[in-house]
Amino acid sequence: MSSSYGKNLRITIFGQSHSPAIGVTIEGLRAGFAIDMEELETFLARRAPGRTAYATARRETDTPEFLCGVKNGVTCGTPFTAIIRNTDARPEDYAPFSAKPRPGHADYTGWVRYGEAGDYAGGGHFSGRMTAPLCVAGGIVLQLLEQEGIRVWSRIRSIGSVQDEGPWPASTAGRGFPTLSPAREAEMRRAIADARRDGDSLGGVIDCAVVGAPAGLGEPMFDGMENRLAAILFGIPAVKGVEFGAGFAAAGMRGSENNDAFAVENGRVVTRTNHSGGILGGITTGMPIEFAVAVKPTPSISLEQATVDLRTMEAAAITIGGRHDPCIVPRAVPVVEAAAALAVYDALLDYRKEMWEQ
Amino acid sequence: MSSSYGKNLRITIFGQSHSPAIGVTIEGLRAGFAIDMEELETFLARRAPGRTAYATARRETDTPEFLCGVKNGVTCGTPFTAIIRNTDARPEDYAPFSAKPRPGHADYTGWVRYGEAGDYAGGGHFSGRMTAPLCVAGGIVLQLLEQEGIRVWSRIRSIGSVQDEGPWPASTAGRGFPTLSPAREAEMRRAIADARRDGDSLGGVIDCAVVGAPAGLGEPMFDGMENRLAAILFGIPAVKGVEFGAGFAAAGMRGSENNDAFAVENGRVVTRTNHSGGILGGITTGMPIEFAVAVKPTPSISLEQATVDLRTMEAAAITIGGRHDPCIVPRAVPVVEAAAALAVYDALLDYRKEMWEQ
Amino acid sequence: MSSSYGKNLRITIFGQSHSPAIGVTIEGLRAGFAIDMEELETFLARRAPGRTAYATARRETDTPEFLCGVKNGVTCGTPFTAIIRNTDARPEDYAPFSAKPRPGHADYTGWVRYGEAGDYAGGGHFSGRMTAPLCVAGGIVLQLLEQEGIRVWSRIRSIGSVQDEGPWPASTAGRGFPTLSPAREAEMRRAIADARRDGDSLGGVIDCAVVGAPAGLGEPMFDGMENRLAAILFGIPAVKGVEFGAGFAAAGMRGSENNDAFAVENGRVVTRTNHSGGILGGITTGMPIEFAVAVKPTPSISLEQATVDLRTMEAAAITIGGRHDPCIVPRAVPVVEAAAALAVYDALLDYRKEMWEQ
Amino acid sequence: MSSSYGKNLRITIFGQSHSPAIGVTIEGLRAGFAIDMEELETFLARRAPGRTAYATARRETDTPEFLCGVKNGVTCGTPFTAIIRNTDARPEDYAPFSAKPRPGHADYTGWVRYGEAGDYAGGGHFSGRMTAPLCVAGGIVLQLLEQEGIRVWSRIRSIGSVQDEGPWPASTAGRGFPTLSPAREAEMRRAIADARRDGDSLGGVIDCAVVGAPAGLGEPMFDGMENRLAAILFGIPAVKGVEFGAGFAAAGMRGSENNDAFAVENGRVVTRTNHSGGILGGITTGMPIEFAVAVKPTPSISLEQATVDLRTMEAAAITIGGRHDPCIVPRAVPVVEAAAALAVYDALLDYRKEMWEQ
Repeated sequence: MSSSYGKNLRITIFGQSHSPAIGVTIEGLRAGFAIDMEELETFLARRAPGRTAYATARRETDTPEFLCGVKNGVTCGTPFTAIIRNTDARPEDYAPFSAKPRPGHADYTGWVRYGEAGDYAGGGHFSGRMTAPLCVAGGIVLQLLEQEGIRVWSRIRSIGSVQDEGPWPASTAGRGFPTLSPAREAEMRRAIADARRDGDSLGGVIDCAVVGAPAGLGEPMFDGMENRLAAILFGIPAVKGVEFGAGFAAAGMRGSENNDAFAVENGRVVTRTNHSGGILGGITTGMPIEFAVAVKPTPSISLEQATVDLRTMEAAAITIGGRHDPCIVPRAVPVVEAAAALAVYDALLDYRKEMWEQ
Repeated sequence: MSSSYGKNLRITIFGQSHSPAIGVTIEGLRAGFAIDMEELETFLARRAPGRTAYATARRETDTPEFLCGVKNGVTCGTPFTAIIRNTDARPEDYAPFSAKPRPGHADYTGWVRYGEAGDYAGGGHFSGRMTAPLCVAGGIVLQLLEQEGIRVWSRIRSIGSVQDEGPWPASTAGRGFPTLSPAREAEMRRAIADARRDGDSLGGVIDCAVVGAPAGLGEPMFDGMENRLAAILFGIPAVKGVEFGAGFAAAGMRGSENNDAFAVENGRVVTRTNHSGGILGGITTGMPIEFAVAVKPTPSISLEQATVDLRTMEAAAITIGGRHDPCIVPRAVPVVEAAAALAVYDALLDYRKEMWEQ
Repeated sequence: MSSSYGKNLRITIFGQSHSPAIGVTIEGLRAGFAIDMEELETFLARRAPGRTAYATARRETDTPEFLCGVKNGVTCGTPFTAIIRNTDARPEDYAPFSAKPRPGHADYTGWVRYGEAGDYAGGGHFSGRMTAPLCVAGGIVLQLLEQEGIRVWSRIRSIGSVQDEGPWPASTAGRGFPTLSPAREAEMRRAIADARRDGDSLGGVIDCAVVGAPAGLGEPMFDGMENRLAAILFGIPAVKGVEFGAGFAAAGMRGSENNDAFAVENGRVVTRTNHSGGILGGITTGMPIEFAVAVKPTPSISLEQATVDLRTMEAAAITIGGRHDPCIVPRAVPVVEAAAALAVYDALLDYRKEMWEQ
Repeated sequence: MSSSYGKNLRITIFGQSHSPAIGVTIEGLRAGFAIDMEELETFLARRAPGRTAYATARRETDTPEFLCGVKNGVTCGTPFTAIIRNTDARPEDYAPFSAKPRPGHADYTGWVRYGEAGDYAGGGHFSGRMTAPLCVAGGIVLQLLEQEGIRVWSRIRSIGSVQDEGPWPASTAGRGFPTLSPAREAEMRRAIADARRDGDSLGGVIDCAVVGAPAGLGEPMFDGMENRLAAILFGIPAVKGVEFGAGFAAAGMRGSENNDAFAVENGRVVTRTNHSGGILGGITTGMPIEFAVAVKPTPSISLEQATVDLRTMEAAAITIGGRHDPCIVPRAVPVVEAAAALAVYDALLDYRKEMWEQ
């Protein structure tokens, strides 16, 4: 279903931007895992709004309440549910749907699907706020992966026209604005400040690498590691592109350049390059799983935009006031990591089933 | 499962490059549809090998045999299965797995997963040959979509460094080498010929547009139209990137550029631009669904490549003889169309269920 | 996954008997449906504990709190979540797992699966308490079905050795102890009182009929109406058998007795008898969908029972004190109705998709 | 989907009674398993028609042709497909659908669903013939289970009013007509002969036991071992009831009788009785998994029956000529075993994933 993901570890996300609460249920979470609550909180803080110059001023503590599936901080094995109360919901935003869909948002498509009954306040279930429960689930699974020696790194490849530089992949140690070049980070921050000043917004590209995953994850055709990752990554609002390894650049290479030569290193098969992004035939090679996602510029901008009044079917103009990020890319980084963790861990559970048999 | 796709219309693909047969089962195909066999054959011919200068010399008639689910060319409503015999399988290729995986192929990852028992001849189940049954299913579904006024167009955006030009999207009328600019097509053909001469290969980017689909297809979060399309597109061998609308380019735009303004045209809501690729919040807007896939260069090249002997774990070199395409992009075009049709039709079935209720 | 059910309307149940809360998420609930809250409350009250002589003395208000998916009592179309706080949880029951599994309960099998980390207080996630959120979901869907003219009736066929009498199926109008014969009801109540007095318990059989469903629901083989119903009914704790129509009795008939002759009545095809339970080949005939479930006697009894100390692996004896029902059959009736409603409505959504096409 | 079953090992069954071929695809079959072809053939022979006095005279060799997924009799790990040609299809049966549905068959419900385009010859996809590919899949999986020390036994509990006697469960060693009492077998055979003579038919009950399965298979609520078994068993044509352990009889017991006391035997936890059928809370206890299925009498009888002409909507009478079994129970025995094997093996794969983690 729409708001569920996963085969062996299945998450179901629920809530709207201004409903009493939002949350996530995880099925298939193994028993006996002691969640490191401090680490989880640190992870969630990277996504939380209201902390920095480039983020929305909306303040939510985003502290999850665990309803079930955990006892004294240790998982029980049965379904786990955490909710987050929408404490900073503003009553004035609950006005009846204005019928003038905001360009670039899901207001119009939601209306086509759900009509007047839909909840569009702040984007409703389409809101970026849904990534908070996604991060609760992903934050726990990142800890499970860490136990297996699997780590997820990411960095901002670009924001607007500013490109990061440096030897990727590399550990970025949970930084809030992860780039390899401090100079480029400064430029990116300036670009965001400029966009804010102009009442406009910026997008960017995030690089992500899953390091330490065994060879053999994923399956051929439609359940490959690429399919699984893409299926969750496109569930993150604003993601409009996903590529693996050299990705779109590979399309411009010759086979002799793009093919990754095999070699032996410390008794293991490795590839000399990793243009494949660590995935061949949908199955991991044991090299880092590398992918990138394109994040479109925040659709909420202060500039006037052309729209339509859906009730009268007449042209209209809107300006979007209120709280919004001029660039969600930095806050999207932990969301991408959470999504990657969920996809890789789910595949890992299939792999164990498979490997047991041999 | 790995080789199945779809929720309401579900395909299951089976076979190996050199097994007795390959095929597809379709569940959920409605009763009473008269398949236009000639049209299906024409569609399959666009993918079939052995026809042109840029394609492999392997010859397969690729004529499907219908085992069930159809009576006098009309669908019965119960599972449909078609198989294609591997008539041109060459016995000499059935040699025991050489244990020297070809770079860029799934030989190594398959071996990790299935060991010596796996069938790696010609890529086994990972072979591009699996796209033939995918096209049988997709070819039928394209006809179903056409009845609804939904059409799937595509063109080659680029091969190697040669870019097509012209006003996309536009009908490409099932052409074998669909570009908008004949001059660019000629350049692309030359680039392919050059790569062949050099024992090398090229990749490219395919643009695809689904035109005429209603607003309202797809669901929020993980079952959106983007997620569904990506989940099947990454099942096509060699696809390494998928983007919707402006995609990666959107990441470099400002919100004011990228947002698609709403307007009314002939009593319908439209957008003035289509940077979103016809999808907002995972749900279609009614504008063309536009996406692109990056196809990596064919990994089979004649040049010597470095690999590893998996039995001895020693470095080795291989040169790949035999039949292979210097560029699979033109043959991948109908495969992308087939995949798009399957994803869109599956979402259309959900939409009908939803719309009935209103 | 384990605690999820449904394809088009999907429920996910979470919680433990003594966790902070239990609840249910429903995905695929259509937008714009005004839930009749009073009717829902009345329905939930039929299942709630603490009301009658034959039920446990545990008191829970069981009033659901709606977290999302509903706005002013009207569904939004996006995921719906309701939770019920476990207000009457008794701290003394939270003692560490005693390691002496109660016969007939899931204590032992849960321990095999989840070990010491599992939550076994009051049965944990295996508790009959999980049927409260099932009834929240089912209660809403019963209202949706009623709008379509589809009603779910049930009656207690037997408790212990006491059999009900009378012309089944017939409307039982939401009665708390639905039998056709008042005399038999009195006998059943006496039998329950006797069992309670003896520190023992009773089981029974519940008949259920779904009336007004169209012909054509369900699909051949593994997604038939019987498969779908059984798959949810066996999720109700204590259900150990499911039969359709004549069921096990059919096995003793001859074909000439068991076959239901077709006839025309008011322009519709009907069958003269309904031994098939309204289902042929997995698909409904338009006659009432009739099935029965066998409910085992409550495993919690006051009598001493033989068990094993799982830590020492030595024989042990336990007597179960505390609150428990001598017979859960009356409270299971609305649970069976809820389950039936969910299965039938899910199939109805498939049917609409199918029928749209014709 | 309708004709697919399983989560980790997924089968998809296709074909109609008189289509060119029928078959099955298995996804998730592990690589490197050498199928014992002779044993498979012996197993399939138990289901095959045309061998005995009580079975249909239709003769099909039922020899599967392996299209893929197997190389020199050893599984490859990728999808496995086997087909069986319908060599004994009789052209005269291909007449256009007579529009007079046979009572007890799926002719009417199929017509409601698929209309005139449906294939109803010999029951089409609803035919008992679909159990041949089910047995191909189940026969292979029975061999996989045997490697794990898990065996599936069954016996005919009753045919018509004749009940078997003796200490169940016990190995029945693949017998064609498995009863514990030879005297009762003789009576059952006589009862079948009598029914045949009368142009009538009989049903029966089959007991099945899965012996040697570990404790811990299955999951709580909707993915329990009971739910999984029921979901496949009701896919066998003519099955109208499923019960576990004491089943419907448990409903008449007191808790003190029905509860299975725990004990230690050879260092393992066992239960003194097995009224639970080896399943508590959906999870196996390690005792034999015991269940029974009710098989209705063959609907095809030679006696005249009342029906309706669906084109004219007028009452009509039919007598069914041709080939049919007076009692399918003996031939259904291996089908039940196949289904049980598929359900248990699928749960075993989940269990391994779970157990790896501990």
